[in-house]
Amino acid sequence: MDKRILIIVFALLLSTVVGFAQSEKVKVVEDFVPCSINQQGKQFPQVNSEGRVRAQIAAPEALKVQLDIGGVKYDMVKDANGVWTGESGPQDEGFHYYQLNIDGASVPDPGTKYFYGAGRWGSGIEIPASDREFYALKDVPHGLVCENIYFSKITNSFRRCFVYTPAGYEKDAKTRYPVLYLQHGSFEDETGWPGQGHANLILDNLIAEQKAVPMIIVMDNGYAYKPQDGETTGRPASVFEDVMITEIIPMIDARFRTKADRNNRAIAGLSMGANQTMRIIMNNLDTFSNYGGFSGTSNYPSSDEIDPVTFLDGKFNDGNTLNKQIDVFWLGLGTKEPKPFPGSVGAFRKMMDKQGIDYVYYESEGTAHEWLTWRRSLYQYAQLIFQNKK
Amino acid sequence: MDKRILIIVFALLLSTVVGFAQSEKVKVVEDFVPCSINQQGKQFPQVNSEGRVRAQIAAPEALKVQLDIGGVKYDMVKDANGVWTGESGPQDEGFHYYQLNIDGASVPDPGTKYFYGAGRWGSGIEIPASDREFYALKDVPHGLVCENIYFSKITNSFRRCFVYTPAGYEKDAKTRYPVLYLQHGSFEDETGWPGQGHANLILDNLIAEQKAVPMIIVMDNGYAYKPQDGETTGRPASVFEDVMITEIIPMIDARFRTKADRNNRAIAGLSMGANQTMRIIMNNLDTFSNYGGFSGTSNYPSSDEIDPVTFLDGKFNDGNTLNKQIDVFWLGLGTKEPKPFPGSVGAFRKMMDKQGIDYVYYESEGTAHEWLTWRRSLYQYAQLIFQNKK
Repeated sequence: MDKRILIIVFALLLSTVVGFAQSEKVKVVEDFVPCSINQQGKQFPQVNSEGRVRAQIAAPEALKVQLDIGGVKYDMVKDANGVWTGESGPQDEGFHYYQLNIDGASVPDPGTKYFYGAGRWGSGIEIPASDREFYALKDVPHGLVCENIYFSKITNSFRRCFVYTPAGYEKDAKTRYPVLYLQHGSFEDETGWPGQGHANLILDNLIAEQKAVPMIIVMDNGYAYKPQDGETTGRPASVFEDVMITEIIPMIDARFRTKADRNNRAIAGLSMGANQTMRIIMNNLDTFSNYGGFSGTSNYPSSDEIDPVTFLDGKFNDGNTLNKQIDVFWLGLGTKEPKPFPGSVGAFRKMMDKQGIDYVYYESEGTAHEWLTWRRSLYQYAQLIFQNKK
Repeated sequence: MDKRILIIVFALLLSTVVGFAQSEKVKVVEDFVPCSINQQGKQFPQVNSEGRVRAQIAAPEALKVQLDIGGVKYDMVKDANGVWTGESGPQDEGFHYYQLNIDGASVPDPGTKYFYGAGRWGSGIEIPASDREFYALKDVPHGLVCENIYFSKITNSFRRCFVYTPAGYEKDAKTRYPVLYLQHGSFEDETGWPGQGHANLILDNLIAEQKAVPMIIVMDNGYAYKPQDGETTGRPASVFEDVMITEIIPMIDARFRTKADRNNRAIAGLSMGANQTMRIIMNNLDTFSNYGGFSGTSNYPSSDEIDPVTFLDGKFNDGNTLNKQIDVFWLGLGTKEPKPFPGSVGAFRKMMDKQGIDYVYYESEGTAHEWLTWRRSLYQYAQLIFQNKK
């Protein structure tokens, strides 16, 4: 057979196969409702009972519009009025960052509120979680979330933390409270926990049910660098530990009615924040007695066996002493977390077991390296700290 | 001559004229710098010394991208890499809402932080104002801005206000403070004043310079409606006054250390908020003694002569009594405000003059119905209230 004919036949076969694949309709359950974190009055995006996201945007002259979520770009379809609509595959329950792609431009969806994550302010979607009641806005006494601006001499810059004070804080001018220092992850900032993290609502609900001790929560920005002198090249070393110990904690103890001792201080963080805060507590056991690592440990990203003699300068070598010094040592991980988190946290746990160090381990069912894992982690962790059981 | 030839000649002439108009280059001063309210690390949008805005976005497959600001859409131009760039005409100094238009889709610019206004969360640009020092972030003692969530029985919904407490509020548990209730405009919300309004920074700076009395500022949402019973059609009547008087004020007086009397309460608002708050103070002179109307009055949108006997049920009829009751009555307007504001505020002032009612009138030079007018108004107004000069 003539080679050209062979090519044409092959092309025809290929186009049939591709055509078949494209026309294969996905069965979508038609029970979509507007997402709970849409802007006021906006009907889109919507979510359905399968966890699919349906986006919609008017773009009459666009050639191609896509919904970009969970690392997948889903083609949207234009109607006669120039309005594009399209659905994603089912997403895990909880919160996800996403965006739209219009003829190659990645932009926020004008229907949603915006959240800081993945290094930018952008759209977020909430797939209703089976256990969402624990972070729901309820008619219980609510604490305040206060924006606290300060000038840092170490970084020579203005910085900001959000401070949660529990309901009742203002009523009695004498009561003092323990403090949890709670950190975000990489490419996030101090708005993460009071925003998509719902740290305030989680504590409002826990405190109303008397499941957690009323506490202050301080949420600062984990990125802190010395001003560069012009000769330094590349990314400078983090001075966040120094800012935390010598600037943030003294400021909080001066400004708020804290119980200013190690037994009444906890530190926790997610992902990069878990890594950072583990180093901070181990270097400052005179300052903190409780640690929470949500989806992260300081051996990240390695999954190799940890040598306790050398890891963090041998800080985990003497298990007996640590068990006396640390009140709560807590680790959490989602069952669907990607590499390297399971391996890295697993290696850390092996070391803890080998050294005989007490810790609590929690698994968030069906969630990955995302905010529902961390909301659940805070919910669990906050119930254990400041109980003075040791 | 053949008509078809005539048409072709005409078309050629027209295309030459259009081509000439399009190629007419606008002289743009090349001193653009990234805007002060860009997202961290974002190089665009930029502003230059003329007040032009230069936007940039990658949209390789787009056919048309525009910068949409101040009611004008400016065409952007694509380079070889698919990156579109374009400039606006000179804008007034201060803050403006804007958006990008990509093949017919109106979307936020991914380079900016987002602000609520014009009924949506979207992009904002800041053209550096000659007097921007008064709302700049400086190394002075900073107050807190606290998010206060509450359940409103009147509206049967959760509502939120932001509460500014001045620096030093936490230090002395006995000092009590006067309170300014400060309202946003139409299609804005409670985030306007602590966000693009910089109410906290304006007061931080004023208080640091001892130009204003340390005060609490409460910024709530001016939209409040009774739950609809199913039979009601159309937009229900506002119950904001009722929410303010019977829910917000008692809550603030219970939660914060306020001076809870009329001499220590002020109410002010911008545009729709000026209209609302004028009605509220005139109906509640036992509750407030200071009023600020920023770019608005309750006769809006009318520019007709006001009859003091009928206007607001004759509340302005007895000038002598009002002069004793009201400590500060303050009105402000930008010199570039569009209709109907100058006429409407002008008619109101004529009535005030006729009735012999004392008031302060301020003009913001070179600004329209926008946030720089209102920042300046707050700056002026806050210096006059709670001075106990009467």
